[in-house]
Amino acid sequence: MRQSQLFFKTQKDFPKDEVAVNAQLLIRGNFVEKLMAGVYSYLPLGWRVRQKIVRIIEEEMNALGSAEILMPALHPRSVWDATGRWEGMEKIMYQFKDHSGREVGLGPTHEEIMAVIGKTVIDSYADLPRTVYQIQTKYRDEPRAKSGLLRGREFTMKDLYSFHTDEASLAEFYEEAKKAYLKVFTRAGLKSYITEASGGDFTKEYSHEFMVETDAGEDETFLCRLCGFAQNKEISKLKAKSNCPKCQSGVIDKVKTVEVGNIFKLGTKFSEPVGFTYKDTQGKMIPVVMGSYGIGVDRLMGTVVEVHHDEKGIVWPESVAPFQVHLLQVGEATPELQQFGTNVYDELVRSGVEVLFDDRTRATTGEKFFDADLIGLPWRVVVSEKTMVQDKIELKRRNETNVKVMKLKECEKMFIE
Amino acid sequence: MRQSQLFFKTQKDFPKDEVAVNAQLLIRGNFVEKLMAGVYSYLPLGWRVRQKIVRIIEEEMNALGSAEILMPALHPRSVWDATGRWEGMEKIMYQFKDHSGREVGLGPTHEEIMAVIGKTVIDSYADLPRTVYQIQTKYRDEPRAKSGLLRGREFTMKDLYSFHTDEASLAEFYEEAKKAYLKVFTRAGLKSYITEASGGDFTKEYSHEFMVETDAGEDETFLCRLCGFAQNKEISKLKAKSNCPKCQSGVIDKVKTVEVGNIFKLGTKFSEPVGFTYKDTQGKMIPVVMGSYGIGVDRLMGTVVEVHHDEKGIVWPESVAPFQVHLLQVGEATPELQQFGTNVYDELVRSGVEVLFDDRTRATTGEKFFDADLIGLPWRVVVSEKTMVQDKIELKRRNETNVKVMKLKECEKMFIE
Repeated sequence: MRQSQLFFKTQKDFPKDEVAVNAQLLIRGNFVEKLMAGVYSYLPLGWRVRQKIVRIIEEEMNALGSAEILMPALHPRSVWDATGRWEGMEKIMYQFKDHSGREVGLGPTHEEIMAVIGKTVIDSYADLPRTVYQIQTKYRDEPRAKSGLLRGREFTMKDLYSFHTDEASLAEFYEEAKKAYLKVFTRAGLKSYITEASGGDFTKEYSHEFMVETDAGEDETFLCRLCGFAQNKEISKLKAKSNCPKCQSGVIDKVKTVEVGNIFKLGTKFSEPVGFTYKDTQGKMIPVVMGSYGIGVDRLMGTVVEVHHDEKGIVWPESVAPFQVHLLQVGEATPELQQFGTNVYDELVRSGVEVLFDDRTRATTGEKFFDADLIGLPWRVVVSEKTMVQDKIELKRRNETNVKVMKLKECEKMFIE
Repeated sequence: MRQSQLFFKTQKDFPKDEVAVNAQLLIRGNFVEKLMAGVYSYLPLGWRVRQKIVRIIEEEMNALGSAEILMPALHPRSVWDATGRWEGMEKIMYQFKDHSGREVGLGPTHEEIMAVIGKTVIDSYADLPRTVYQIQTKYRDEPRAKSGLLRGREFTMKDLYSFHTDEASLAEFYEEAKKAYLKVFTRAGLKSYITEASGGDFTKEYSHEFMVETDAGEDETFLCRLCGFAQNKEISKLKAKSNCPKCQSGVIDKVKTVEVGNIFKLGTKFSEPVGFTYKDTQGKMIPVVMGSYGIGVDRLMGTVVEVHHDEKGIVWPESVAPFQVHLLQVGEATPELQQFGTNVYDELVRSGVEVLFDDRTRATTGEKFFDADLIGLPWRVVVSEKTMVQDKIELKRRNETNVKVMKLKECEKMFIE
């Protein structure tokens, strides 16, 4: 894509109330734009990152045998009253009346709606197990929304729901889901730890959280870096600097983490109140056993930025970068250099490489380098008068300092590998 | 996909208040599920149709040189007050207070938000023209929501916005957008007509609507079937049965239509109130000229069903069908027949054909044929004891009556073409 034609401009002025690094870099890099606290627009570069994350999640959820669906955000009160959560969640749920006086709310989660839909699809033990997921917009009226994409009032979640005849079937899928979650985070460039945590509103059992270490995190986790053992500090009886109870040789640290995913064994908490049952082999009606599994899409994107940046800007992992290559044409834009730049661009595009071509004629070389570091694409390719006369290009990785001068064919091989 | 493992069941009971054919068929076929009037969930088959429509739209918008973005649904009152539309749209906009008492609303459209974002990206004539689009959830508190997917309270729109230095640049893009819109509807299996209409809330100029003829439509359009001339009845001075003013030889009919898309020349109506300007070559600040271009995604899906169905169910056009082929294994499920069915399924999947395999052992042959007609995939392939002994399959198109018995290799050729 030619930068000169893209709806895009790195920002010098941005909201002074943004304290989170992810929000500062994403706004300055014009990935997102803030509409109000906790509510952001995704601009073209940000949308591309978001889509890459969505694709990774979809691939791993499909590999689990789950099918994608889409539930609405606008919910009638009646469905939430069945479990008592209309009142239980009123502090964080947007609840209001429509023009006819009917009470409606914006869903912060979908267990109730899912159980009601499940009733229409599942009748018998032969219809189980099943699993579906959605990638959908959710709402929480957060009292504080100061963490950029880490805690939004409007945000996108992947929420998956599983339906089972019994706890054993749920436990089996639950372990598969754990593995899929670790894969998602690894593919997005994040090292994650699984912690046991309280189930909160969802279940009386313990649940599991997927934590990524970063100072921007709002959670405190006891972590043994040696073996990866982790425990939510809130429910832990451990002490800092004690020996790791798992590997015995590591030491427990007190670290800040962001929760990028969580999984819950719901049991029959949501199926019983709405009468979501199946017929067993004897014809007896039994409540369906459920699990729910969440990943915050925007939060994942914000976490990637918190973990992968330096003082100059973002350093995107290849898997979620909006483009692989930032091609910069620098120096006086002579017709010859413009032609040379265009040839390099066309050749890279033809090879299937995703390229953002900074072909702006009104930006200085300094501005182009500054913007390239801020935007943070994995590879920077520079063409200039100097490289043109040698019929070469300059190649640099965003996370390395050394610059290599080489023929285009040579560097293409690296991108395609 | 194996039907026996899909979260899916055709419905015998469905909401009695659904009068629209599209809602009746889509609910009975388990494509969608109604949560409340005008608010639907998309189940796995419905989600696949929706994604195919989304992909068609994305391809055609990208071909126009537009880039995808995503704006939020939750808006602060302040942005809407700039144009006076907070009060102007209060009859159909969901407006409420958050827990801190701040007035917020759910966006029925995004011109105001877009103009505010545009201010941060566009400075100079060199930044124009530009265009961006989103595929996003919108809200309208419709007093009547009785038309299924044709008129939702929560619905998905593709809305594209274009930014220009002057009316001439807008006019040029506007004509390109018209062509792209016709392509989208043709690709989705719909014949559409362009009508001139009043611009409503958006502009004082006339706008254009894209109309599809169906009795389920809420609009009345004068149409000449001979040359395709169409005019919104509300603003027309024509009379039914008069000669067509364009081709002179056709006759004007009074027909019911659904508006599947609309495009508006906004001019500076939204840029002026928020101070969205650019610097011209003389350094003078000039308001940006805007256009907006909408397609209702759910409405498009509902319209396809209204146009393409018969008394037995839906007849999906290939381009938007959830799967191309419905493979039915019928008769007693002997191990030999199950193996034969599985072989046919595996072979079709390997060839890159999208197959829904009705491998249910508890459904009767009659139920399988009934469901296949209701769901309406373009091709039906049947394997039975009778076809197995000949090492053949039975092939039938959903919209034809004759059944052909042939080798699998022969029929594969048809799907891949």
